[in-house]
Amino acid sequence: MRLLVVNPNTSTTMTSTILSAARATDPGLHVDALCPERGPASVEGRVDEIISAYWALDTVLPVVNEYDGVIVACYSNHPLIGALRELLDQPVLGILEASILQALPLGDRFSIVTTSLRWQPLLEEAVHALGLERRCASVRTTGLSVHEVDTLPDDDVRAHLRRAALAAVEEDGAEVICLGCAGMAGFEAAVAQATGVPVIDGVQAAVWQVRGMVASGASTSKRRLYQRAEYPPAGSGLDMLKRFNGSNGR
Amino acid sequence: MRLLVVNPNTSTTMTSTILSAARATDPGLHVDALCPERGPASVEGRVDEIISAYWALDTVLPVVNEYDGVIVACYSNHPLIGALRELLDQPVLGILEASILQALPLGDRFSIVTTSLRWQPLLEEAVHALGLERRCASVRTTGLSVHEVDTLPDDDVRAHLRRAALAAVEEDGAEVICLGCAGMAGFEAAVAQATGVPVIDGVQAAVWQVRGMVASGASTSKRRLYQRAEYPPAGSGLDMLKRFNGSNGR
Amino acid sequence: MRLLVVNPNTSTTMTSTILSAARATDPGLHVDALCPERGPASVEGRVDEIISAYWALDTVLPVVNEYDGVIVACYSNHPLIGALRELLDQPVLGILEASILQALPLGDRFSIVTTSLRWQPLLEEAVHALGLERRCASVRTTGLSVHEVDTLPDDDVRAHLRRAALAAVEEDGAEVICLGCAGMAGFEAAVAQATGVPVIDGVQAAVWQVRGMVASGASTSKRRLYQRAEYPPAGSGLDMLKRFNGSNGR
Amino acid sequence: MRLLVVNPNTSTTMTSTILSAARATDPGLHVDALCPERGPASVEGRVDEIISAYWALDTVLPVVNEYDGVIVACYSNHPLIGALRELLDQPVLGILEASILQALPLGDRFSIVTTSLRWQPLLEEAVHALGLERRCASVRTTGLSVHEVDTLPDDDVRAHLRRAALAAVEEDGAEVICLGCAGMAGFEAAVAQATGVPVIDGVQAAVWQVRGMVASGASTSKRRLYQRAEYPPAGSGLDMLKRFNGSNGR
Amino acid sequence: MRLLVVNPNTSTTMTSTILSAARATDPGLHVDALCPERGPASVEGRVDEIISAYWALDTVLPVVNEYDGVIVACYSNHPLIGALRELLDQPVLGILEASILQALPLGDRFSIVTTSLRWQPLLEEAVHALGLERRCASVRTTGLSVHEVDTLPDDDVRAHLRRAALAAVEEDGAEVICLGCAGMAGFEAAVAQATGVPVIDGVQAAVWQVRGMVASGASTSKRRLYQRAEYPPAGSGLDMLKRFNGSNGR
Amino acid sequence: MRLLVVNPNTSTTMTSTILSAARATDPGLHVDALCPERGPASVEGRVDEIISAYWALDTVLPVVNEYDGVIVACYSNHPLIGALRELLDQPVLGILEASILQALPLGDRFSIVTTSLRWQPLLEEAVHALGLERRCASVRTTGLSVHEVDTLPDDDVRAHLRRAALAAVEEDGAEVICLGCAGMAGFEAAVAQATGVPVIDGVQAAVWQVRGMVASGASTSKRRLYQRAEYPPAGSGLDMLKRFNGSNGR
Repeated sequence: MRLLVVNPNTSTTMTSTILSAARATDPGLHVDALCPERGPASVEGRVDEIISAYWALDTVLPVVNEYDGVIVACYSNHPLIGALRELLDQPVLGILEASILQALPLGDRFSIVTTSLRWQPLLEEAVHALGLERRCASVRTTGLSVHEVDTLPDDDVRAHLRRAALAAVEEDGAEVICLGCAGMAGFEAAVAQATGVPVIDGVQAAVWQVRGMVASGASTSKRRLYQRAEYPPAGSGLDMLKRFNGSNGR
Repeated sequence: MRLLVVNPNTSTTMTSTILSAARATDPGLHVDALCPERGPASVEGRVDEIISAYWALDTVLPVVNEYDGVIVACYSNHPLIGALRELLDQPVLGILEASILQALPLGDRFSIVTTSLRWQPLLEEAVHALGLERRCASVRTTGLSVHEVDTLPDDDVRAHLRRAALAAVEEDGAEVICLGCAGMAGFEAAVAQATGVPVIDGVQAAVWQVRGMVASGASTSKRRLYQRAEYPPAGSGLDMLKRFNGSNGR
Repeated sequence: MRLLVVNPNTSTTMTSTILSAARATDPGLHVDALCPERGPASVEGRVDEIISAYWALDTVLPVVNEYDGVIVACYSNHPLIGALRELLDQPVLGILEASILQALPLGDRFSIVTTSLRWQPLLEEAVHALGLERRCASVRTTGLSVHEVDTLPDDDVRAHLRRAALAAVEEDGAEVICLGCAGMAGFEAAVAQATGVPVIDGVQAAVWQVRGMVASGASTSKRRLYQRAEYPPAGSGLDMLKRFNGSNGR
Repeated sequence: MRLLVVNPNTSTTMTSTILSAARATDPGLHVDALCPERGPASVEGRVDEIISAYWALDTVLPVVNEYDGVIVACYSNHPLIGALRELLDQPVLGILEASILQALPLGDRFSIVTTSLRWQPLLEEAVHALGLERRCASVRTTGLSVHEVDTLPDDDVRAHLRRAALAAVEEDGAEVICLGCAGMAGFEAAVAQATGVPVIDGVQAAVWQVRGMVASGASTSKRRLYQRAEYPPAGSGLDMLKRFNGSNGR
Repeated sequence: MRLLVVNPNTSTTMTSTILSAARATDPGLHVDALCPERGPASVEGRVDEIISAYWALDTVLPVVNEYDGVIVACYSNHPLIGALRELLDQPVLGILEASILQALPLGDRFSIVTTSLRWQPLLEEAVHALGLERRCASVRTTGLSVHEVDTLPDDDVRAHLRRAALAAVEEDGAEVICLGCAGMAGFEAAVAQATGVPVIDGVQAAVWQVRGMVASGASTSKRRLYQRAEYPPAGSGLDMLKRFNGSNGR
Repeated sequence: MRLLVVNPNTSTTMTSTILSAARATDPGLHVDALCPERGPASVEGRVDEIISAYWALDTVLPVVNEYDGVIVACYSNHPLIGALRELLDQPVLGILEASILQALPLGDRFSIVTTSLRWQPLLEEAVHALGLERRCASVRTTGLSVHEVDTLPDDDVRAHLRRAALAAVEEDGAEVICLGCAGMAGFEAAVAQATGVPVIDGVQAAVWQVRGMVASGASTSKRRLYQRAEYPPAGSGLDMLKRFNGSNGR
């Protein structure tokens, strides 16, 4: 079984970190990771989602058929997820959805603790799109930017995370915490200790769930929502993408 | 007041037709229209949405500040809409949302009649994203592709539309019909006559609603969902986009 | 195009103010306004709704056929709206619904800022009846009666409005504010400045939306919710009403 | 304990029938019934609701304080119900709500079988207003008018009722049937036999529920939804109504 | 008419108190009560629910056919309720559902005030299972255990109850309070006085509602949710239960 | 890592089959299975749920602390699941929930295809309890009893399954099928071939998901819904259960 992790931003550092986390779940598992060369260094809103999805498609499609399952490692309802499901038969899973699927059996309601205020309404919208708002206690933010999560002393980041997670548990009734940013990996234990509730990391959750799907022979349904588009000149999704990009000098 | 209509696909014919429809609402109104030069000739799914949003952003941003309001003329929850709302203060409205807003006061439940089966789940998802599923009786399809809507004899298209709309009214309880494709403009009267219910065209609806917003001084809220992203190097949305596209040789 | 604005209470002062606001949207537009001679001077609850609807029907029906569209200028789910939709083919729109329809494309969630506590649950119920509760952040009240809104110094009213609107934005997550009382017209700018979010006036919104419906040829659906009642002795709605009121000595 | 049943239409025959049904629940119970002298002979839509509510208020208010609880015997979300709850401390219950409250513990989902097509969307709206749509399998109509229910041979009416109820059970998954019209009293056994499910009569259900409320000392809450309106000149609801009607020559 | 009240815990004191409350509704009514000899002395969670349901079934089934209706006197969505509905034709009602059904016509939203924190999520889940969450303002707890409710001085209990109920009314918008524990009987007046809203006792509510169902001939539906299970060797529910318990030496 | 599969019915044959399916997911994984000696041979409704939960608790609790995660292998919202979550820190997962969690990323809407009509409303209720009804297209039944699934020729069972699954896909819009009975294991390929959509087996799905939770260090939250009950005499869940069963001669 071969899994591919796609980080839609251009940060190779973050891509390495995510790959390590994915491989740590099981040393025997084949996992690769990649990210596009162009586009935003971090995805901070809807414009970034479009640009990063565009270049990630361009990067992923030439190699994706070598893999049995794909993980999109952006903690959001990133448009790349739906696009890949439309194009592929293999299971495709984002880390936001994965973290929620793992949280659901552990408590009635989960909260997401994420970085900047910009992400709060976008993640609320993502939970609604999944039809899971009744199970969501809240989306809380630390107020830190992704940049600050990366560069501030660990003790500071930890303090911000604890405070937001504790508020989710004590004020919003959260029973499980989902860490809403790949850059928060490694803080699970601190947050669990501070809150006394289970804390979920989306990358690990995604690896196990996609493994389960692949091992069970489950594929993306080609009926209704993820059916392939009918392109006027019949052709594979990759051809189509090449065609559009052709005039782009690539 | 100056309005801009953006057609995210590359069909200049369809762009002209849409512009005519928009201008027909009021000869004294200043409306322009444009479409990107690259990307899909018709938007047929999620991959197309990403590619068309990417190139439409590229096309629109250099000129958008000359306009007081923007209409996105793709009958969907096209990602361009949210991206423009994130970047701009001006009102931005898609024709799907516009047609529903006009339908709501005319009956309890509306149905959308659209083209191919591929769009049915995507439009159902769009209605859910708007939080309006209780008011939606159904999304029905004619089974015709956009291509067929354009090229089949009008009588054939009309027959397909009537059949689908009649089923929405009689089987699903629709009280209002929204025509779910810009290519269906001109068939309103035939559908209204066949069904006995009001039939809404999204382009006209959008023009009147955006006019109302602009005239009333209403702008896109910069709190929560449509707040601007905080880019590490502060700068306007246009700068940011240029920066990413810079390496693209443009 | 001729539009009629109906104020269901008996205040001719308020009726003049509303008419001015409606006409200010476009000097070239023909708009008339009227209010009943009998009934409550301001509508303060359900009993008032019934009485004001009764006398407003009596006042409106003899002249309504001279108009292409009707606006009910009470900020509520006033029973007159549904009754007129049942009787008429023309579009009929209340200012509560109009303000929400204009708010929806400008942000994910709106709040209504209204007068007295009595209106809070009634407006929450109205939003639920429209099926739009997911988009509503809150209904906030100033605690002022309609009378106080009219008679207190403007600075006092402005201070109350700002405080309630600010709470809606900062505590409830409102992205757009709808002013929930015709008497609040003229305070939009002050509230917008205090909160930094767009502020909607229902009368202006209603005029533009009804214009759009009329111009597009859209009429009230006669299927299901707004179908006409089948009266044992067949006759027009007006005849029926005259019959009932006949014994009333009028 | 003294209960008052209000029939908002002017049919004294129907009022007598309803009173008999109410009294039959317990011969020792004091129940009176009344109906207005003016207004529609049967309530067939929203206009009729307003007119009948107006005249019913006029009729009921002078005597209502002699009673411990009030039943509104129109199978709908009649505006009289909310108006009386606003004015009174005593419990007030409509027969639609009563029939549903009795149906809920007997099965997961109920259907309402009512008369004409006009009532279908109005009753669906009423169920939504109560927040009970998840428990409602369907609203079915016999297609008969109230007049036909009264004048057709019993065998014909019974056949229509059975057919509609059977469709609700077999096609919509109804587990309990609520008879949606006072004129259907007496057909419970036939419908129960034809469908094999319990059949609820709203008048009987209402009597038992209001008795229970009165006996337990439960009153209409004066917080939020049913609080009294604050009239500029303080006074009782009755005074206010008299004032408005004063100019009416009564 | 003969009613049976089942207390699923083993406390004979509590059973007597509940029986007195049930009989107090009408001295002429025949009501009996029983509780199992084995199982938990108070039901404090899901494990207790299973054990108490098991032994309550064992106790109730031999005598239940002598009764016309059954009340389950545990303030929860106790599994015994669904099991008895599956086995019986008679109406079966729990006191949680009964209290809510009585609260609904008295205000838009009710709150439940119960004992320990453990019950808060379980009662929220119960309200959701009934499909009534839109009408529920909150579930509040006193923080007292059932044991403390029984043994603390009345003044202390009353103070805790008042505080929780007042918070429900003032902070959560409750219009009606349901007392969420049989041990709270007798405190209704104190809570009503402190809050100014109606306060519901589930036992009394249940007696009146079951009386109404029995008197109206309403039975538990045998379609869908409460249909009897098809046991491989056909036999009555009681036989089946005896068979399983047979090896148990009883 | 050691996993325990609990089959709450007394069929040792079915327990063996389930254990084989669980072990087949990964030969290196330690999985044990057990079932109670007393209780129903198959769980066919609510009474069976209570009895099987009682005896399964009795069987599982003495050994459960030797395991890192528990799977409840009854395709339902079996009360044993919540009881074990209340008592334990380890993850506990039922096969119904597991199958749905695996289905969600593969399509917008899943259908469950189960055995007898009795299970249809119970599974609909289970999906609602999970808060996932928006993602559920339908619950379909083959009409076969569990007994028939076991004893009829495979070709007959396959034909019934195909027919029900095809109806779910073509009439209800299902994009993924969950096989709603452990006895249906082995028919996945036939159903997938007949319908063209992915088909999920709950046992395999559960094994992968529990493995993922255990490997990631995720435990059942002890806040709110699954907190332990506070028993008057403090003690472990097992002590309490022994105490109650003590008088039972065991």
